[in-house]
Amino acid sequence: MRYELYYWPEIQGRGELVRLALEEAGAPYVDVARGKGGVAAMMRLMGGGGARAAFAPPFLKAGKLLIGQTANILLYLGARHGLAPEADAGRLWVHQLQLTIADFLQEVHDTHHPISGNLYYEDQHREAGRRAADFLASRAPKYFGYFETVLARKKAKGAWLAGGRISYADLSLFQMVEGLRYAFPRAMARLERRHRRIVALHDRVARRPRIAAYLASPRRIAFNEQGIFRRYRELDSA
Amino acid sequence: MRYELYYWPEIQGRGELVRLALEEAGAPYVDVARGKGGVAAMMRLMGGGGARAAFAPPFLKAGKLLIGQTANILLYLGARHGLAPEADAGRLWVHQLQLTIADFLQEVHDTHHPISGNLYYEDQHREAGRRAADFLASRAPKYFGYFETVLARKKAKGAWLAGGRISYADLSLFQMVEGLRYAFPRAMARLERRHRRIVALHDRVARRPRIAAYLASPRRIAFNEQGIFRRYRELDSA
Repeated sequence: MRYELYYWPEIQGRGELVRLALEEAGAPYVDVARGKGGVAAMMRLMGGGGARAAFAPPFLKAGKLLIGQTANILLYLGARHGLAPEADAGRLWVHQLQLTIADFLQEVHDTHHPISGNLYYEDQHREAGRRAADFLASRAPKYFGYFETVLARKKAKGAWLAGGRISYADLSLFQMVEGLRYAFPRAMARLERRHRRIVALHDRVARRPRIAAYLASPRRIAFNEQGIFRRYRELDSA
Repeated sequence: MRYELYYWPEIQGRGELVRLALEEAGAPYVDVARGKGGVAAMMRLMGGGGARAAFAPPFLKAGKLLIGQTANILLYLGARHGLAPEADAGRLWVHQLQLTIADFLQEVHDTHHPISGNLYYEDQHREAGRRAADFLASRAPKYFGYFETVLARKKAKGAWLAGGRISYADLSLFQMVEGLRYAFPRAMARLERRHRRIVALHDRVARRPRIAAYLASPRRIAFNEQGIFRRYRELDSA
């Protein structure tokens, strides 16, 4: 079966967490909205007629299934492709970590759009300045501290968040590091010094053969100022 | 087995979505932080020592399992107590709806705290005014429109989001209506007129015998200005 991924074609965004899982799994997929007429097809599936349409991209077509919400897609892919533990406890733990990453990612988004996704950054840049300062001083350290502690304390042997096998949460944590390096290079340089386990995990993900091949391919969209991770110099802090 | 729920004792908040599921299931549970020394016990479990500590409340202790993230707790309870379909497609669909409600709820929170959870409302009330106006004009109608459409289009027979059996997502959607009625009575009066199916679903949930008993009991905390749904008159709009 070839999956169909539906997501905005010009950004990494939340879709990237799904792309990384599909790539690591070596699963055949087509990134529909990046093809001709793809965005229109995506909009039809969302607004159009389906009884189980998604509220927003990304969503994944898997045979007859149409699955929305990033963490939910990963729950599905994790079970099918060995990217999550099979036992209940481990499966729930990885999903819990993923949902925490989803919250983290939302807070990154809100650093540049604290008032409304309907307004341009320029129309809320003052509020963004306040929010980004709080994010970098308080929230990002809290999330990083949490994941660093998870890696320090885990009882399962092995290098990954859930022990010996890589999971979709590891891939998403890699992406958080990638994105924050892009968006807030000065603040991240400081944060990385205190969160060595997370940086090491990031590096291990980057060396996975399929991930390395993906990152070097044109399938990996470059970061830019339409995505969730945006580089606005005035929001970064040393 | 008696569950242990850990959540802030003075608010409904995200914990309420778990409480509603436990109550509808008739599952024995203790709301730990509402008992003597309970908040200290909760903080110990979070920061303290556990290898699988949660980032934030709520979390649920189920035997040896410690499960965090509201939607993840509901995924677990849904499977154990018949509050979600058993088949993959329905289970994922209900979880997808729940994650969409989680996003909705986060946006409600941000109407009064658009800059930082570390600051008082008074320190961000101007930004809150902008964000709440956008929320009521654009976001709340979009979410309500989505759920109204889900209820209008569903193929499965029966009154509930996923067909013939109530699910945890129905309970959470009920709570969104309850909360928004409290926080934004004027805006909600307007919204409800255009979303009759959601209002009807709310009313059906309220009539469930166990839910009705719960709502009338002292276990149901009253809405207040420490929770997610807050009534600040200046944020409401006619």
